Amino acid sequence: MNKRAMPIRPKAELPRGFHDEVGEEVRATRLMISKLSSIYEIRGFEPLSTSSFEYTQALGKYLPDLDRPNQGVFSLLDDDKQWMSLRYDLTAPLARYVAENFDQLAKPFRRYQFGSVWRNEKPGPGRFREFLQMDVDTVGTANSAADAEMAMIAADGLEAVGIDRGEYMVRVSNRKLMDGVLANLDLAGDESEGACQRLMVLRAIDKLDRLGAPGVRLLLGAGRKDDSGDFTRGADLSSDQIDKVMGFAQSQRSNRTDTLSEMAKFASGSDVGDAGLEELSQIGEQLNACGYGETQISFDPSVVRGLEYYTGAVFEAELMFEANGADGRPVRFGSVGGGGRYDDLVSRFSGQSVPSTGYSVGISRLFAALKFLNRAGEDNVRGPVVILAMDHDEQAGYHAMAQELHYAGVRAEPYLGTSGMKAQMKYANRRRAPVVVIEGTIERESGVVTVKDLIEGERLAGEISNRTEWISSRPAQETVERQRMVETVIAYLSRHGLEPGSSS
Amino acid sequence: MNKRAMPIRPKAELPRGFHDEVGEEVRATRLMISKLSSIYEIRGFEPLSTSSFEYTQALGKYLPDLDRPNQGVFSLLDDDKQWMSLRYDLTAPLARYVAENFDQLAKPFRRYQFGSVWRNEKPGPGRFREFLQMDVDTVGTANSAADAEMAMIAADGLEAVGIDRGEYMVRVSNRKLMDGVLANLDLAGDESEGACQRLMVLRAIDKLDRLGAPGVRLLLGAGRKDDSGDFTRGADLSSDQIDKVMGFAQSQRSNRTDTLSEMAKFASGSDVGDAGLEELSQIGEQLNACGYGETQISFDPSVVRGLEYYTGAVFEAELMFEANGADGRPVRFGSVGGGGRYDDLVSRFSGQSVPSTGYSVGISRLFAALKFLNRAGEDNVRGPVVILAMDHDEQAGYHAMAQELHYAGVRAEPYLGTSGMKAQMKYANRRRAPVVVIEGTIERESGVVTVKDLIEGERLAGEISNRTEWISSRPAQETVERQRMVETVIAYLSRHGLEPGSSS
Repeated sequence: MNKRAMPIRPKAELPRGFHDEVGEEVRATRLMISKLSSIYEIRGFEPLSTSSFEYTQALGKYLPDLDRPNQGVFSLLDDDKQWMSLRYDLTAPLARYVAENFDQLAKPFRRYQFGSVWRNEKPGPGRFREFLQMDVDTVGTANSAADAEMAMIAADGLEAVGIDRGEYMVRVSNRKLMDGVLANLDLAGDESEGACQRLMVLRAIDKLDRLGAPGVRLLLGAGRKDDSGDFTRGADLSSDQIDKVMGFAQSQRSNRTDTLSEMAKFASGSDVGDAGLEELSQIGEQLNACGYGETQISFDPSVVRGLEYYTGAVFEAELMFEANGADGRPVRFGSVGGGGRYDDLVSRFSGQSVPSTGYSVGISRLFAALKFLNRAGEDNVRGPVVILAMDHDEQAGYHAMAQELHYAGVRAEPYLGTSGMKAQMKYANRRRAPVVVIEGTIERESGVVTVKDLIEGERLAGEISNRTEWISSRPAQETVERQRMVETVIAYLSRHGLEPGSSS
Repeated sequence: MNKRAMPIRPKAELPRGFHDEVGEEVRATRLMISKLSSIYEIRGFEPLSTSSFEYTQALGKYLPDLDRPNQGVFSLLDDDKQWMSLRYDLTAPLARYVAENFDQLAKPFRRYQFGSVWRNEKPGPGRFREFLQMDVDTVGTANSAADAEMAMIAADGLEAVGIDRGEYMVRVSNRKLMDGVLANLDLAGDESEGACQRLMVLRAIDKLDRLGAPGVRLLLGAGRKDDSGDFTRGADLSSDQIDKVMGFAQSQRSNRTDTLSEMAKFASGSDVGDAGLEELSQIGEQLNACGYGETQISFDPSVVRGLEYYTGAVFEAELMFEANGADGRPVRFGSVGGGGRYDDLVSRFSGQSVPSTGYSVGISRLFAALKFLNRAGEDNVRGPVVILAMDHDEQAGYHAMAQELHYAGVRAEPYLGTSGMKAQMKYANRRRAPVVVIEGTIERESGVVTVKDLIEGERLAGEISNRTEWISSRPAQETVERQRMVETVIAYLSRHGLEPGSSS
């Protein structure tokens, strides 16, 4: 038998729905995280980082997708025959953490967390099975001031990462209001039928943006057939009931005070509806006291949020500008964050009621928005200054030159490959090096180095078409004494606004 | 049937071998990452972030544990019937990434990456199944200058995070040297027997620290019985051969030049041995040119590194101070990083030789070291200034007070719970608040607030034992006009060296 049979080569590719992030996306993400962290820190939240895995049982049925409550996670059987799953969000692990450490925590417990979440779903364009989220939560208080803070945080966060006022809207509502509206409708049926109908009404309202009022009316009534001919069963409300639900869903007015009054017409009259109105009214007061205006945070009865576990205030951070949709037509960029009050997650473990509220930012989604707006800071990053290796026996000297530049705060590297001059220049260009430093045998023997400005060179190359002129004018480079290398490089960087220590 | 049967409560706990990181560990980790990133950035490396999952086939047999080459990863079967695994290190994904994107990359490709890795191993004390690594690699060059840079990076990184010179040693060797030593021994046997014997010799040398020379001699010869009576088969070398291997393994002298000369006595004479000596000699030259001294980086023939895939230079970053071992006796803290040259990882995919070198830091392990040294920066973090909620109807005003402090760069939060004064003071103490601000009805009506210094209060509480004296002296607090709140809080923070914007 041939012991050295030709091995079968594995294919170099990622599993479906996963992706790598390269240079600029990683840097931009880090910058976003850092800016959001500053906001959470200054407001007194503490960082937490939970494990990627949880017992599947601990995640329970609180899965992200209403329509597939028991699917969507990556699970595997541990050696001890217990199922464990990768977290699909940062809220379920928080609930487990709080239940596990309840007595040790100062309450309210205020934490923020950043990390990957995994969803075992059919991948699609722009739809990944691993992505980054950043969450902030206040756990252990029913105080609506904690909800108001989440709305403020949503606005502060968007502005901090570079979304201007007017380009976003944080929309706030309260689940109890719709419960109040339904309580006023005299719906028939027992408790579980009522819960089901409530869910169908919420789902219908959630589609107001996409289907418009006529489509939603169908979903509230007998049902709706979509363009493909598929029929969705409706909530079976009467025409009068539909009018009231739609009246509520469309009760947004030009400011929070007026919206609240309009909402009250449909939602007041029951304990639950009145509680929702009171909470929203308090949130409004707090937003006013802190100067969050109508162009930042609005009350909007059409905000539902997909998650079933919300019990009170709900928030949605939406970007208002338009991007190209899948069909090429402009569509509103849409949601980049959301959250709400969830009073029952911790009690699953402990039986103890731990009212909580939180807000989650989709970091990958927000990066896509910043990139679309050309504000991800990607174009500002230049590569390192490259010390060409003209003479491979002098590598130690090139290392030392790079080190001198590091000490001066300049991003720099000696060329570490083994190729010749032409490949090295190509390397420097591909790395977007602002400057290269050249020290061949002749330069070394004369105690000089040549410093070449690639940015200026690029610009001139566009202007000088004649090769002879190019060579004779030797644009954008200078031969200086070896000990003037660092200052010359810094001068070259400075003329392009690249200060040492900020070139990355 | 009872529809509302008592639900079975899941237990609030993590799967075995996983853990949560709280506040200070997260902050300290972030700081380490930031400092190491600066070093990698200034040297011209670019950040990369690969997916957590790889196809199991793409990971291949390059598993971390020599003794269990096909175990140790978390794997699951995807919908399309392909096995995928969570990465167990950051090198295998890099090899896949480079092979996948080879033509688009400027070579050498220089990247750094930080992230979790997962190992499906039996958990033990301090041995987790998910932990953080930070890697830096130069891919696509056989140039020993790239290896030298890795040794420099190891030293720079340790010093940057707070390990002082003299407390660490970066030990460098080269796999080719031992091959040279073995080539000089006239070992019998065919190629695969030779490879097996080479591996057994490497493993024996790797235990020099733990077993001492006599133990290693047994492992090089007939074999060794340990204290528990277990017998480990030896490499079956003759006594003369053992002398030569041990002579090499113990050829470290007081400086790199002398060590190199001593190593040469055993390793020179074959192509492979001479190549190893030449590479190490070049590394030495480059370290000298950049001023890395003998107290930072040493040549040490006993460095082996556990990974089978290394083909040339190997590095080990070791902490030299002692900590308490499992048996309570002091042991050297040991390795916190390592790496080496691996020339064959990318070719597994492409068939194309892509010589590479890299260095990896165990972030969790390094955090443990900094914590042990009391240098993790944990004790410096104070909680936020807490605005007590004396009057729950005035929550909007407390929010606004916190906001004024935020604008001045002061970390602050209004108390967001619903408890009374006593619980609020307890909360402020548990959060390690430096200062609390108190505005009850009487204060508000007089247009004043009370600012209370909890740090000073703590100190005085230790001195004043008499309760009457305590109350009458009203230590460490002041009632000031409402508009002087911010300046008063800042003055209180300043007297404890807590400047706004730096309190976290």
